[in-house]
Amino acid sequence: MKKIINNPADVVSESLNGMQQAYPEFLEYTPDAEIISRHERGNKVAVISGGGAGHEPLHAGFVGKGMLDAAVSGNIFSSPSPDRIGTAIKKMNTGKGVLLIVKNYSGDIMNFGLARDLAEADGIEVESVVVKDDVAVLDSTYSTGRRGIAGTVFVHKIAGAKAEAGAGLPEVKAAAEHAIANIRSMGMAMTPCILPAVGRPGFTLAEDEIEIGMGIHGEPGVERTGIKTAKETAEILLDKILADYDYSNSEVAVLVNGLGGTPLMELYILNKEVQAYLKKRGIKVHKTLVGNYTTALDMTGCSLTLMKLDAELKELLDKPCDTPALKF
Amino acid sequence: MKKIINNPADVVSESLNGMQQAYPEFLEYTPDAEIISRHERGNKVAVISGGGAGHEPLHAGFVGKGMLDAAVSGNIFSSPSPDRIGTAIKKMNTGKGVLLIVKNYSGDIMNFGLARDLAEADGIEVESVVVKDDVAVLDSTYSTGRRGIAGTVFVHKIAGAKAEAGAGLPEVKAAAEHAIANIRSMGMAMTPCILPAVGRPGFTLAEDEIEIGMGIHGEPGVERTGIKTAKETAEILLDKILADYDYSNSEVAVLVNGLGGTPLMELYILNKEVQAYLKKRGIKVHKTLVGNYTTALDMTGCSLTLMKLDAELKELLDKPCDTPALKF
Repeated sequence: MKKIINNPADVVSESLNGMQQAYPEFLEYTPDAEIISRHERGNKVAVISGGGAGHEPLHAGFVGKGMLDAAVSGNIFSSPSPDRIGTAIKKMNTGKGVLLIVKNYSGDIMNFGLARDLAEADGIEVESVVVKDDVAVLDSTYSTGRRGIAGTVFVHKIAGAKAEAGAGLPEVKAAAEHAIANIRSMGMAMTPCILPAVGRPGFTLAEDEIEIGMGIHGEPGVERTGIKTAKETAEILLDKILADYDYSNSEVAVLVNGLGGTPLMELYILNKEVQAYLKKRGIKVHKTLVGNYTTALDMTGCSLTLMKLDAELKELLDKPCDTPALKF
Repeated sequence: MKKIINNPADVVSESLNGMQQAYPEFLEYTPDAEIISRHERGNKVAVISGGGAGHEPLHAGFVGKGMLDAAVSGNIFSSPSPDRIGTAIKKMNTGKGVLLIVKNYSGDIMNFGLARDLAEADGIEVESVVVKDDVAVLDSTYSTGRRGIAGTVFVHKIAGAKAEAGAGLPEVKAAAEHAIANIRSMGMAMTPCILPAVGRPGFTLAEDEIEIGMGIHGEPGVERTGIKTAKETAEILLDKILADYDYSNSEVAVLVNGLGGTPLMELYILNKEVQAYLKKRGIKVHKTLVGNYTTALDMTGCSLTLMKLDAELKELLDKPCDTPALKF
């Protein structure tokens, strides 16, 4: 297994530790609970997210001014325990309440739900929202209903901006729900990822084969097919996204996301095709992000995300943020 | 070949085009000459860099306020022609002169040199500096003397900050030279990269083999060896860097760089070991960058860079910058 690691059992704690040491002036690392949190935050609603590790920079890379207050990590592709999430809730609550942003996977739904119940029993006001942006499949290996994938980054941005502006918990929750309702994503994978503790791919794809709609844990997608050009890839993924939600005559934010092993050059080529596709359909692009934002370890492939913007979402999207993985 | 591309012959122009479309408000793309340049710039010394493509985000990703004014791209791993470089010089010169930042490869040295001569014959004041930070090998496949690798990012930052502050050409050049004198790097590769026009790796590494000191075009390094832990990797690369230049009792900037196919999680684990190593030796870290800054297409592996800081370099490093790949 060719990875820059030490003991496979330690990859999560060591990577969070190493991440915090790149930003000591504004991030804190809580060992054992595997929490990355902000040093500086006002007396505001706390926005917390998290989930399995292996999707870096999601979620810890979005901790900072204008986005998350804390991110809680589980093991690779495995939900954090309710105990860890509860520690983050107690640590970040300033009395204004806590919003949990949860990706729609059964383990996350259960553990964040339990942590919420326990915190509420302790008198902390907690709300949660569930991101389910992946239009590829309705039910999946680890989800009932749609999976939550890279669109989560936009939910972090919108909820974080609203909380930073001093809004109350119901308003921050409403902004996050409003973003979720307007976000759709879909991806494709070209090569599988290798889990450090396993040391070999969990499945195989032939030399000339890709999988459309594969999940960010390698869950089955909708179709295995031959290699596509960048133009075909943009068309296949965006056709499916546009068939699912009406983006016509709208203004959107775009995320062209890499899965970890795909270099920036390819994502930029894909972006050229995405922009051409949207222009042809009269969809106006307000802001575009291109890069590795929500990954699946060293998997190669991509996902595309659109968020339809109205005045409120546009204003919140454009507000400044200062995190390791996103700065406006 | 599993890449998100269209025609392999078009990858450079399409990726620069797609990159510009992610940042239309502040970047311009000049087709044919393959230049990415800033819309907004003052009446200041122009700082230009460039080289072969395939190292994204280097160089175009560092065009913007406080860093480069323009980046000129050649084909994959191949120097831009003097004609392209000359176009960039003429385009960006505001009458205050132009600094060219060149990585030490024979093709770049020749082509940037020719472009400089031609521009000077046209009455434009041009200076150049050569980055040769790689301590791995003295002469290499494409270089006489040391190769220029990821340390180039720090040179862009320092020269760009000096130019943005309104310094004259001799001062901007001196700041760049001062940075270069204090920068050392070394890398290692785990898997080769695949050139789009070729479709298969240019060399092979066994399943249990890595190459210490490999160049960012797959040029030979110093040793093929078994897979190392993150701790051993940090020690091997930093031992060589510290043996070459005296960083003892100093303050440094650190760059933990991925080669394109290596995910962020592994780079953070490596950073944990880098910080531990430096702390043990009494070297104080002022700033750390972790990510894919200077890549070799989809190669997996990493490089480490140290820049020794004095008051001047520290001040210039800390100045704000706003580019696609780096924002302070």
